[in-house]
Amino acid sequence: MTERIFCFTSPDEVEAAFYTAFVTGNLGAMQALWVNEGALCVHPGSHAIIGQDAVLRSWKHILTDSINPDIRLRVVQRTRQDNLAVHVIEEHISVKGSDQADALILATNIYREDDGCWYLQEHHASLIQSQHQGQTLQ
Amino acid sequence: MTERIFCFTSPDEVEAAFYTAFVTGNLGAMQALWVNEGALCVHPGSHAIIGQDAVLRSWKHILTDSINPDIRLRVVQRTRQDNLAVHVIEEHISVKGSDQADALILATNIYREDDGCWYLQEHHASLIQSQHQGQTLQ
Repeated sequence: MTERIFCFTSPDEVEAAFYTAFVTGNLGAMQALWVNEGALCVHPGSHAIIGQDAVLRSWKHILTDSINPDIRLRVVQRTRQDNLAVHVIEEHISVKGSDQADALILATNIYREDDGCWYLQEHHASLIQSQHQGQTLQ
Repeated sequence: MTERIFCFTSPDEVEAAFYTAFVTGNLGAMQALWVNEGALCVHPGSHAIIGQDAVLRSWKHILTDSINPDIRLRVVQRTRQDNLAVHVIEEHISVKGSDQADALILATNIYREDDGCWYLQEHHASLIQSQHQGQTLQ
C-alpha cells in the first residue's frame, strides 16, 4: 500500500498524471495515483491484475522496457456519478526511432474518489485490430 | 432508442439478463437492457462502438453468427457507488460441437441507474492471451 503523497482533485487530474507517468517512464509518479484498495489493471491481452502491488509490478516492467513512448489521446466518452467516473480513451502509442509498429489501444479508465481525493481504480486496455479476432465468440 | 419494457432493480439483474441474452441469442432481450443514452461497447479487438443503435447492430451480427455459446462466468471484482456500478468478469466461452477454439475473455461491465432502474452502459471485452501482445507498448 502506498503512502498518500498526492490528492488529485478530479478524474481529469489523475488521468493527466497517469499518462504523464507512462510517457516519462516515472514509476514513482505511477505509484502515487492508484487507489489503495481495489486497484485492477488489464494490459492488452492480459488477465486482470489485481491489487496495488501486483498492478505496480506490471507497470514497473512496462516502464522499464519502454523508451519514452509518444502517446496521443482521444477521449471517446466521459461519465461521472458522484464518487465514480469512467473515461473511455483511444490511445495512439508510438516509439520514436523504433521499428516497433504503432499501437492503437482502447482504454476504459475508472476513477474513484476516496476521502475527497481522486485516484485510478481500473485501467482496462485492449488492442484495436483492423479485423476482429473471435468475432463470432464476441 | 428503445422503448423501456424492463426495469432492472440491480446491476446483478442486468448482468444476468445480458449473459442470458448472449447465450440464448435473444436480440429482443439484448435490446431491453442497454441505457438509452451513452451506450458503448468494445468487442475483442474492436474500436469503441458508440450509441444504442450501433451497439445493438453489432450484437445482432454476433447473435446471428453464434450458435448458443456456452459461457461460464467468474466475477473478478464488483464496485458500486450510488448510481454507477463496475463489474469485472472473466468469460469462458465455448461452442459445443464446434471446431472453434474456446475463448477466454476479460470484460469490464458498467451499469448505470436511470430513474430507479439499472441498465448496461458499457461492455468492454478483450481476449486474454497466454502471451501479451505489444507488451512494451502497454
